[in-house]
Amino acid sequence: MPTGAEPPVIVPPVIVLVRPQLGQNIGKAARAMLNFGLTEMRLVSPRDGWPNPSAGPAAAGADIVLERAVAFETLAEAVADCAHVYATTVRKRGVSKPVFTPEEAAQAIHAAGATRSAIVFGPERSGLETDDVALARAIITVPVNPEFASLNLAQAVVLCAYEWSKGAALGVVEQPTVEEILPPAPQAELDGLIGHFEALLEPFEYFDPPARAASTRRTLRNMLTKPGWNHLEVRTMRGMLSALERRPRKE
Amino acid sequence: MPTGAEPPVIVPPVIVLVRPQLGQNIGKAARAMLNFGLTEMRLVSPRDGWPNPSAGPAAAGADIVLERAVAFETLAEAVADCAHVYATTVRKRGVSKPVFTPEEAAQAIHAAGATRSAIVFGPERSGLETDDVALARAIITVPVNPEFASLNLAQAVVLCAYEWSKGAALGVVEQPTVEEILPPAPQAELDGLIGHFEALLEPFEYFDPPARAASTRRTLRNMLTKPGWNHLEVRTMRGMLSALERRPRKE
Repeated sequence: MPTGAEPPVIVPPVIVLVRPQLGQNIGKAARAMLNFGLTEMRLVSPRDGWPNPSAGPAAAGADIVLERAVAFETLAEAVADCAHVYATTVRKRGVSKPVFTPEEAAQAIHAAGATRSAIVFGPERSGLETDDVALARAIITVPVNPEFASLNLAQAVVLCAYEWSKGAALGVVEQPTVEEILPPAPQAELDGLIGHFEALLEPFEYFDPPARAASTRRTLRNMLTKPGWNHLEVRTMRGMLSALERRPRKE
Repeated sequence: MPTGAEPPVIVPPVIVLVRPQLGQNIGKAARAMLNFGLTEMRLVSPRDGWPNPSAGPAAAGADIVLERAVAFETLAEAVADCAHVYATTVRKRGVSKPVFTPEEAAQAIHAAGATRSAIVFGPERSGLETDDVALARAIITVPVNPEFASLNLAQAVVLCAYEWSKGAALGVVEQPTVEEILPPAPQAELDGLIGHFEALLEPFEYFDPPARAASTRRTLRNMLTKPGWNHLEVRTMRGMLSALERRPRKE
């Protein structure tokens, strides 16, 4: 960590749109991002493919964001290099993850310094699925009028981008105080751990009966996402799982 | 709010759109307003008259705002009953008025209590004229990316409405309920989990050689302490460990 006059490294968050329906909304989100200095957009299975000719006009000049936007098949791939994943939801889904306002999330993203964060937005109508939310370490809920809570996609994006930008402008950047605190492992490493756990448990019929398997897997993912284990910790846990796969040599 | 005290009278600001061009944008502004609990819209010389049939669909259900919206010929008439008038402009016009961020303006509006305030927005392309700005006591400038400063009308409205709502203790702000985030399990339960892990790993020679056992056990404890798992999560993890103790029935 720089102790002198070095400016702190600020890594702006990645904006991830999951299964967006209208190209127009992708364009509007791009405009909202660039209005507040964000340029990295990722798309997960956009309904009409990518690139989408109707995104450009709606971006009103934010072409650089659209040109750099990358499409992925799954959310897991889209956030594989992100250590902090925030899922935006209007209502809490009964998952035990911390709930942040956009302002609190912006502070946390700034505090993460050079560690990459992602803010994930769901499709226009339905919002994120439970399985998408399970990938996130925390939830962002915009404190919206409970009697009229349907927030437009680009509006949700602009509020998060605006809060991030406010924190950046104010120099609110807080560096972690203890250098030894490593950031959470990237999502891809976490996915590796979760996959390892599942593969280990499968032969023990842990995921039976099949009707409950999806929910059991989600519980497992949520539990293993919660710690925010760094890459050393993930490696240690995988070492344990590997040990359990061996044949016991002692009685 | 202090118990026993009368709740303070909060008068939400009036949103004034000056010479808006597209009915669609009026509808979107209405939606953004209602998202954050604002219902009073005034229009000054809307280009296509008022009411405008293309406003409704864009309002996405915020009909109450459109139904109550009143059109005026001049800005002076529209804000005649308002003691505090804020003009939103992207760039300062060289006028000697105080310049507020949306957040500072929201604070000032709350501080004004029962005194009515208005936030005034200009036409989509051109923004407010100097004569419009002259009517205002203060200016609101959204701290936008100077290299990409053209903020969509509804986006400007949503940011101001959001900041006002943040400051309002209206119960619009939904706090996460305590029940949804359970506290970490008591230490005894955590110790039970750690002991279970150790007992499971021991026959697999995970703690060999003995010289390293203490440090390996400490790493394990640190890792399992970090998540702050609640008692349901601890129970789930113990269920997994118990499954692994059984004999695999599948190949």
